[in-house]
Amino acid sequence: MTSSAFVPSRRSDVAPFIAMDVLSEAARLEADGRRIVHMEVGQPSAPAPKAALAAADEALRHGRLGYTEALGVKPLRHALARHYKKTYGVEIPIDRIVATTGSSAGFNLAFLAAFDPGDRVVLTAPGYPAYRNILKVLGLVPVEVEVGAETRWSLTPDHLEEVQKDGPVKGVLVASPANPTGTMMSAEALEDLIRYCESRRIWFISDEIYHGLDYAGEQKTALAFSRNAIVINSFSKYYCMTGWRIGWMVLPEQLVRPVERIAQSLYISPPELSQIAATAALDAVQELEGVKAGYAANRALLLEKLPEIGLDRLLPVDGAFYIYADISRFSSDSLEFARQMLHQAGVAATPGVDFDPVHGHEFLRFSFAGTHEDMKEALNRLSAFLK
Amino acid sequence: MTSSAFVPSRRSDVAPFIAMDVLSEAARLEADGRRIVHMEVGQPSAPAPKAALAAADEALRHGRLGYTEALGVKPLRHALARHYKKTYGVEIPIDRIVATTGSSAGFNLAFLAAFDPGDRVVLTAPGYPAYRNILKVLGLVPVEVEVGAETRWSLTPDHLEEVQKDGPVKGVLVASPANPTGTMMSAEALEDLIRYCESRRIWFISDEIYHGLDYAGEQKTALAFSRNAIVINSFSKYYCMTGWRIGWMVLPEQLVRPVERIAQSLYISPPELSQIAATAALDAVQELEGVKAGYAANRALLLEKLPEIGLDRLLPVDGAFYIYADISRFSSDSLEFARQMLHQAGVAATPGVDFDPVHGHEFLRFSFAGTHEDMKEALNRLSAFLK
Repeated sequence: MTSSAFVPSRRSDVAPFIAMDVLSEAARLEADGRRIVHMEVGQPSAPAPKAALAAADEALRHGRLGYTEALGVKPLRHALARHYKKTYGVEIPIDRIVATTGSSAGFNLAFLAAFDPGDRVVLTAPGYPAYRNILKVLGLVPVEVEVGAETRWSLTPDHLEEVQKDGPVKGVLVASPANPTGTMMSAEALEDLIRYCESRRIWFISDEIYHGLDYAGEQKTALAFSRNAIVINSFSKYYCMTGWRIGWMVLPEQLVRPVERIAQSLYISPPELSQIAATAALDAVQELEGVKAGYAANRALLLEKLPEIGLDRLLPVDGAFYIYADISRFSSDSLEFARQMLHQAGVAATPGVDFDPVHGHEFLRFSFAGTHEDMKEALNRLSAFLK
Repeated sequence: MTSSAFVPSRRSDVAPFIAMDVLSEAARLEADGRRIVHMEVGQPSAPAPKAALAAADEALRHGRLGYTEALGVKPLRHALARHYKKTYGVEIPIDRIVATTGSSAGFNLAFLAAFDPGDRVVLTAPGYPAYRNILKVLGLVPVEVEVGAETRWSLTPDHLEEVQKDGPVKGVLVASPANPTGTMMSAEALEDLIRYCESRRIWFISDEIYHGLDYAGEQKTALAFSRNAIVINSFSKYYCMTGWRIGWMVLPEQLVRPVERIAQSLYISPPELSQIAATAALDAVQELEGVKAGYAANRALLLEKLPEIGLDRLLPVDGAFYIYADISRFSSDSLEFARQMLHQAGVAATPGVDFDPVHGHEFLRFSFAGTHEDMKEALNRLSAFLK
């Protein structure tokens, strides 16, 4: 009887994205009149760059916004090709560049186009929880490798040798700068890992969503090392366009048409207004470097003050806008600790269990993409709360 | 060796959405200076309603567009609850209403939350090709039932009895008004089918995306007949907001949290600006009824003139903005015929093979959502071409 009742599918039993649940809970408190400092969700407090807003405004005034080609409008794809040439010195034909409905769509499309049910895909723990959840819901097997200080929180060929003892690996997904740790791989470490994957015919998926937000070390795109790398990126972070849901992928030639076919049915096309605004955002580097300077100031403030109030075990913050803090001296239940911190101090942060089922109960992720005033307010509140 | 080469996944081998391929081909011709009359893609030529544009404009001027709750912003969900009360006299708690990134996201989320790999889901043929493609890519088994004049192109309990002889059926997906046929089910036929599914514990998914666009007969929502129906809808058609990628679902209570968990990882949230604009669009009925009157005029013109130029075998056009025409007196290869029509006459239409692998080679779908002038121009061009 149970199998024929109106019950949810087995595969829908994925973990919630706790950061989004914290956001919902914070919204409920705000509806009750509380003032909450938001450090739970990785999104800039700055709006989209002025040039992007102006382009959107112009498009709103002139005619219809419609479906576009599934791979995105040509001007955006051309602008992205120029971006790769200028930023990394890499030539990418626009045929390999695909606009997507945020990096979320990029992951979904990459996983569907490259992997079949049962395929094993290696991730780091800690890592972005949506990777794991999307893989699971699509019938894939996330293989989480615990990384730590000994490899500077990066995946290495040795890790891959190890996990292949349990069965073949079809793909590897890496982010640098990483979420939630904010750590970056050195160019050498990235190249080593990609060359290893290339030689073993393992798909290398490079999540470059935090590119542009680096405070130490040089950032390299995976495209510099392999024609088979799948690169996923987005306008949400550096370009301050989270709510616009617009990103892009760079694909190996042989995946372009499979991705196009799937995207035609699964997305039709990315939002047209967002594509237009994003095209303009690529030229707004001056304004965006100003925003980044704000993150750098927030980072400096937090790295100075957090240790003074008891949070002194922090991972190196090379890039992105996250501080991943060891809270084990206060609690070994980050979920409950984050809840208390939200309700008592009015500071929202994301419990580490979102990112790492093994050690995450002793960590919190703080986003410093908010305003400098928010950071000061958060420090005051946390100082009182942690006493 | 082949299994370890860098090749696309097996499941990515879905059919292309030919309407989108026709759109791409038409865009190439336009880039070469050709003037094309677009009847291939189901999208209104009218822009979003003024109130929606004004709301978007206002939001662009004030602050950041960010992630929202995964299920969508509360004002939109409240407005949708009012819409159900006003339009259908049905009370729906906002907890069961979910904003989605177009109906595309609605289908993906519904399929993932209700079905596990291998589950059989019944569709009509002809029918919207993305249903079949999304089901396949998610490891589900589309069971296409050929429908025809004898049931007025609708699915019936008898059809379901028949297909269950080959194995259990987990879901049924029906659109009324339908795409590509434009036919509608009577209230009785819809109720019969839903009650049959309810009694057999078969998920009933009702694609109501063409609601509001009815020219004959009364439209009923599946929600009037079952608390377990899954309703999918969108602002793309009646509300003229295709490029905004915004839609919604109404879910049975037990699917809300599974859909929320999946959406958090797979979509984060629908585009915020589109949610804001859509909320305003729900009040723009007067303007939108004007647009609908334009479709009615296009419909009347085509139903009068197409038979005069040789296209006299048309399905009843009860709703939506499609005419599904039997072209068998001209060709038995609708793909090639559509290509010639595009290149020689500059009229883009969608070959029936997109919608029906069995009989679709003898049909074309014409969308009449364009301007009245476009319809006249198309008739002139087609008249010459068909001679």
